[in-house]
Amino acid sequence: MLLIRRAFLPARLAVRTYATVPRDPRFAQVTPALLNQFAGVLSSPKSSILSSLTGGPWTTVEADDLATFNEDWMGKYKGKSTCVVRPKSTEELAQIMRICYDNDVAIVPQGGNTGLVGGGVPVHDEVVISLASMNRVRSFDATSGTLVCDAGCILENLDAHVGQHGYMMPLDLGAKGTCHIGGNVATNAGGLRFLRYGSLHGSVLGLEVVLPNGEILHNLGTLRKDNTGFDLKQLFIGSEGTIGIITGVSIATPRRPLATNVAVFGVPSFEAVQTTFQRTKKHCAEILSAYEFIDGETYGLVQTNPSRGVRDVFAERHPMYVLIETSGSCKAHDDEKLQGLLEELLEEGIVNDGVLAQDESQVHTLWALRESAPESYARQGKVYKYDISMPIERMYELVEHMREHYDKAGLLDKPGRPGLVKAVGGYGHVGDGNLHINIVAERYDPSIEEATVPHIYEWIRDVRGSVSAEHGLGLAKANAIGYSKEPLMVEYMQRIKSLFDPKGLLNPYKVSGSV
Amino acid sequence: MLLIRRAFLPARLAVRTYATVPRDPRFAQVTPALLNQFAGVLSSPKSSILSSLTGGPWTTVEADDLATFNEDWMGKYKGKSTCVVRPKSTEELAQIMRICYDNDVAIVPQGGNTGLVGGGVPVHDEVVISLASMNRVRSFDATSGTLVCDAGCILENLDAHVGQHGYMMPLDLGAKGTCHIGGNVATNAGGLRFLRYGSLHGSVLGLEVVLPNGEILHNLGTLRKDNTGFDLKQLFIGSEGTIGIITGVSIATPRRPLATNVAVFGVPSFEAVQTTFQRTKKHCAEILSAYEFIDGETYGLVQTNPSRGVRDVFAERHPMYVLIETSGSCKAHDDEKLQGLLEELLEEGIVNDGVLAQDESQVHTLWALRESAPESYARQGKVYKYDISMPIERMYELVEHMREHYDKAGLLDKPGRPGLVKAVGGYGHVGDGNLHINIVAERYDPSIEEATVPHIYEWIRDVRGSVSAEHGLGLAKANAIGYSKEPLMVEYMQRIKSLFDPKGLLNPYKVSGSV
Repeated sequence: MLLIRRAFLPARLAVRTYATVPRDPRFAQVTPALLNQFAGVLSSPKSSILSSLTGGPWTTVEADDLATFNEDWMGKYKGKSTCVVRPKSTEELAQIMRICYDNDVAIVPQGGNTGLVGGGVPVHDEVVISLASMNRVRSFDATSGTLVCDAGCILENLDAHVGQHGYMMPLDLGAKGTCHIGGNVATNAGGLRFLRYGSLHGSVLGLEVVLPNGEILHNLGTLRKDNTGFDLKQLFIGSEGTIGIITGVSIATPRRPLATNVAVFGVPSFEAVQTTFQRTKKHCAEILSAYEFIDGETYGLVQTNPSRGVRDVFAERHPMYVLIETSGSCKAHDDEKLQGLLEELLEEGIVNDGVLAQDESQVHTLWALRESAPESYARQGKVYKYDISMPIERMYELVEHMREHYDKAGLLDKPGRPGLVKAVGGYGHVGDGNLHINIVAERYDPSIEEATVPHIYEWIRDVRGSVSAEHGLGLAKANAIGYSKEPLMVEYMQRIKSLFDPKGLLNPYKVSGSV
Repeated sequence: MLLIRRAFLPARLAVRTYATVPRDPRFAQVTPALLNQFAGVLSSPKSSILSSLTGGPWTTVEADDLATFNEDWMGKYKGKSTCVVRPKSTEELAQIMRICYDNDVAIVPQGGNTGLVGGGVPVHDEVVISLASMNRVRSFDATSGTLVCDAGCILENLDAHVGQHGYMMPLDLGAKGTCHIGGNVATNAGGLRFLRYGSLHGSVLGLEVVLPNGEILHNLGTLRKDNTGFDLKQLFIGSEGTIGIITGVSIATPRRPLATNVAVFGVPSFEAVQTTFQRTKKHCAEILSAYEFIDGETYGLVQTNPSRGVRDVFAERHPMYVLIETSGSCKAHDDEKLQGLLEELLEEGIVNDGVLAQDESQVHTLWALRESAPESYARQGKVYKYDISMPIERMYELVEHMREHYDKAGLLDKPGRPGLVKAVGGYGHVGDGNLHINIVAERYDPSIEEATVPHIYEWIRDVRGSVSAEHGLGLAKANAIGYSKEPLMVEYMQRIKSLFDPKGLLNPYKVSGSV
């Protein structure tokens, strides 16, 4: 749901901001001799190694042909690796890691390359290890709903696979057609089902991980309960590929709901967004599967720059909007619960107006209002985006604060005083305290960047929020960790990093522990 | 639900098995000089220090008066600590830890002392640090349902506290009136709501932890989403007090359900238990809150040795029984779903018979059949118990296998051939693959013990099960970890242990990483 078209992306900002990380001279250069070592441990070097280097039994390509591996999908982060390895098995991957370890070669693990913070692409010439050729479902137990699969399986394919048995994946996100389950786990992806099915820390049952020195941690159990020692797999969930490469995932999948309903309400204030959330939890408790909000600014932009399928469903505009989704096993029951909620909200005047989808097509129309928000922003101008979390009651304050902040700085465009900042709006997973704040600018400009960072991070720190709710730190926010974690925490993270990766070869320059 | 009366406990076995762990000579003896150092950092040494030593401003007691801290509630594990410290704040606790660290004094953290594996009591003369005086609710956010509290808060009290706002704790267990939330988190407690609300790895949002050297990790955030670096708190969930003492807990609480229903079915086989589970998940999906089973052996014992409130609800006996609980926000809807399930199961002949509770009192009557199982076993003789998990389809096989195994060993009591083993039965949280296997013996006898261990652990290893599903390793199973975790995993656990506790002072002799 977060997909933004490449054309809209802030390439200039990226170049200015990230090109300055110096290459670590401890890392060896990739040479044909190294690739020959790789080739020696791979069953099919011709299909498993792509390189711009020549001189061995691999596939030699032009440097430009490696762009899909060197650059993130947004074109924001760009490395210059000369080699991509796609092992076909955990054992092959382990041997490649061992060779890199022995030769001081830096590595970046790569899944579907759908990340938003530059965590999955090389910064300099790191060897790209792609999981794309490890995409086998290993087993599915239809009694317990436990799926075991390779890390390179695409999320949407897995959802279809377990769907045959009446189950579904416990996470869903816009990039599902491309992202790998291994990448989802490595970045602790949140997404749209988080409110209902919770964190991957709860639903991942086991992991198979190759450590930087080539050791394989076999922790791919399928047990829901296992209290035998420290739960090591938890460390790899959200580690962003810096302490090991996840090669296998065991995950608990919930029953696929038989009925889905969606309602959208226009509400008078952010306070009403919260009251509505309370009432929704009361009426819909166990069937609530999403509680999203968009502000008036965003709704207006969505209507001004409509995507396909978007239309205005209200007779008049409201200050705020919320979208509620329910998922259950009995449509009649769910309809009744949602209807009860709707009546209470309208009767008590908590919401101004409400629309309840009557069929599948209307479900899509209502979701389009929320899902098309990123694109509508991008159509309006250049966009600065921040993915943050905080206590729900403070969420919208930040949007208002930033608007005022740009106004004071003389940057906000107003009648009679033109400014670079055209709009400041917010939307997001309010049920999880997760806000996506968007700043629309006439152009990317240092004056805006300087007015924004670190100011916005300081504000988040002061309300004990997170500077990265669900996207991770990657390269983009590697230096911002201090706004959400105290120095002692960061110090222990660095020690954990050293414990697993003493040479610092795995995904260098990223997160905090790696530098 | 696992409470067993002290009188029924296998004291002789315990003495034979655990008394042989030698004291680590690296640890310093506790002296009055040390206690005086403690006293110097405590606001109220008189109420915070209990000791059998004399010579300072603390409360001196007879050695016997420390028994409640030195022994577990079952009387199975018994240490001989001379000193119990009950700090009143995180800062006080941190200073005590620092003093112990500087003086090489070993420590055992203690919550409600309700554990089942000897993890919360001293083995020798470790200083007991009790969290009992840290029992303050720090905050509760009624919008998000986030509770922040001291680790020494009693689970039932917390449930009552959040209950005032329409929420409930995401875990429930028999010891709730005594156990501390800090202990629950430190042991990754499972319990009766696990099937619905999942693992503490998912619901714990933040922890405040004092490390062995007295450093305080401030990781007590209230955010549902926070992807900034490694999720260190996960390491402490289930670490059994071996790498830090949890002093504060932030936890997400779900809405308290407005309706609860219970049904019990008599079914012809364990295969039918599984089929019924599938059908139940289909019909009751989002309202299912417990799926428990007891076998015919257990049901018979429950009727032969009835606890208060137990009665036979079936006209005839069945090979297996399942108990289903639903919790939802609308009683009429839940009744309808459960009725639909009942009809399908009976019409298709999947179950033999079924009873649906008609009121609150019948809910208790049906739960009593399952909850009184441990006591009924204990009334029948001496009981060996194993808390294990494995793939659901293999679960009952183990009970049958052990019965046959004792038969072959000439230990099973049969007509015409008396034997020490009177009965082998099983019950448990089948929805989580968690079996409690019970072996009733005429007396505790080495011949039974030798026939059981390591045989049962080997069987569990071979089906990739866990030798401790929810009780932890503690002292009891410290040496059994190898049956569920490979050597490399154990090696990394030991490294993690050394990283946080280089002197090995915290909860020594326990789990595997500690030795």
